[in-house]
Amino acid sequence: MGNDEWQLQPYLTERIELVNATLDRYLPKAGTLPASLHDAMRYSVFAGGKRIRPILMLAACEAVGGKVENVLPAACAIEMIHSYSLIHDDLPAMDDDNLRRGIPTNHKVYGEATAILAGDGLLTEAFILLSNPDVCGVVTAEKYREVIHILAKSAGSMGMVGGQVVDMEAEEKPVDLPTLEYIHTHKTGALILAAIEVGAIIGGATAKQRRALCRYGETAGLAFQVADDILDIVADQSQLGKDVGSDQQRGKATYPALLGLKGARQRAAELRDLAFAALEPFGVSARPLREIASYIVDRSF
Amino acid sequence: MGNDEWQLQPYLTERIELVNATLDRYLPKAGTLPASLHDAMRYSVFAGGKRIRPILMLAACEAVGGKVENVLPAACAIEMIHSYSLIHDDLPAMDDDNLRRGIPTNHKVYGEATAILAGDGLLTEAFILLSNPDVCGVVTAEKYREVIHILAKSAGSMGMVGGQVVDMEAEEKPVDLPTLEYIHTHKTGALILAAIEVGAIIGGATAKQRRALCRYGETAGLAFQVADDILDIVADQSQLGKDVGSDQQRGKATYPALLGLKGARQRAAELRDLAFAALEPFGVSARPLREIASYIVDRSF
Repeated sequence: MGNDEWQLQPYLTERIELVNATLDRYLPKAGTLPASLHDAMRYSVFAGGKRIRPILMLAACEAVGGKVENVLPAACAIEMIHSYSLIHDDLPAMDDDNLRRGIPTNHKVYGEATAILAGDGLLTEAFILLSNPDVCGVVTAEKYREVIHILAKSAGSMGMVGGQVVDMEAEEKPVDLPTLEYIHTHKTGALILAAIEVGAIIGGATAKQRRALCRYGETAGLAFQVADDILDIVADQSQLGKDVGSDQQRGKATYPALLGLKGARQRAAELRDLAFAALEPFGVSARPLREIASYIVDRSF
Repeated sequence: MGNDEWQLQPYLTERIELVNATLDRYLPKAGTLPASLHDAMRYSVFAGGKRIRPILMLAACEAVGGKVENVLPAACAIEMIHSYSLIHDDLPAMDDDNLRRGIPTNHKVYGEATAILAGDGLLTEAFILLSNPDVCGVVTAEKYREVIHILAKSAGSMGMVGGQVVDMEAEEKPVDLPTLEYIHTHKTGALILAAIEVGAIIGGATAKQRRALCRYGETAGLAFQVADDILDIVADQSQLGKDVGSDQQRGKATYPALLGLKGARQRAAELRDLAFAALEPFGVSARPLREIASYIVDRSF
């Protein structure tokens, strides 16, 4: 296939299938005891996610000439971490959501206790996988130490979990733009940036390449969130798989609420262009990263 | 101090202080943003735990001639994992406990949402610590990969989290002895065994020493649980820091319920003696491990 014929949608479809097949291989099999727990873990992992974090990790690895098969375990680990965070976010004590991607949330199907433990199990499974020498043996333990450190920090109390806490606390009071950016750079941005950085490390990036890809990760990650906020207002329910305007109903701060719809779209476009600029040194090998940023931002226009 | 003067209580006191001081150093400082989250994480870690898992890990390391300072980071990591598991176990959706070690449980102080996230944060913090090259740099990354793998597996869906699920499910039906042992070897035994095994690995154990210490970990871990079940029946509340007979009230299966009080004490003593036998090759260097097993079982007599 010539480069001009490259198209994003078939690329994403193929990558989603690859990630799903690999997740299926690495997760404990259905029926593994305790069966209810492993069913619950698999239910949320295979509930139709877009696999954006693993796909970005694979693309970052390939942008610096790395091999997809070397980065697949870490790509699956980050998706397990993402899945755990969604299960816990949806709990009655947190966002109390009944639907996720158009199907009942984990605790609606398996009960609250099992949902908490399924989340705990998935987070832990990510680190089981990242330290499994049979799976990760082609990459040095030294490199994996860095990978584990980056992923854990991005998911932890000064990353994703910290962002979730500030997001919860922000529901009770007016939120300014710096707080909103704090929430997003931590709650969702940290893991997206980690996806890119881990892909770069396993792909063998130079220090300079790694810095450039991290700039892409930071700006694209925030652009995705601005686009999500816009979509929450303008999309219809079937497109979103959750209640339209649910952020607004909850009194959550959003970019359109703070900047207006036009201002939010302008911010998304600026961030996308910064992401493009960071990719310039990579040429055609960064085409998937560029097209993904373009696609996610543009669908909110 | 001559060997004959060695006493368990001063040893435990000194070790608890060492573990507490090291945990204080490795955990994010109080006031680190988000402050409520880090306060909640610290609240449960410093709520008066006996530090039995870190102390066993240090003792296993020393039993094979290893250095305490090399194993302290992993010892703190296992205590973070243990603390997270207690926070989640106490949640309204799980055991719904108001008191733990005589003080209010995490969700009673910080609310349910923050308690869930404090648990998530502590579990993740364990892996941040275990992959921090500034802290763990004296031990090879190769060895740490194994340490992380063992700790994660023992805490995960086929270890501690799996044991918790089977324990919950067992509340609804009569439980036989094999199921009770499954619950205990997974819910509490897996992490105790991991403490011993990690101590052995970092201490530089031979394969034979490691197998012997694992036999100690398996038998002592189960002995502790049998002793706990007995204490739940015979101790008074001040000794226990929780409601006496709370397991019974909840209809939980216990060793005394299945074997009678006398039978349970006999089982605890048998397991303790198996633990002693496993330590024989180590001589005086395993004295702390021996005395700990002896102390924990004997206080239930």
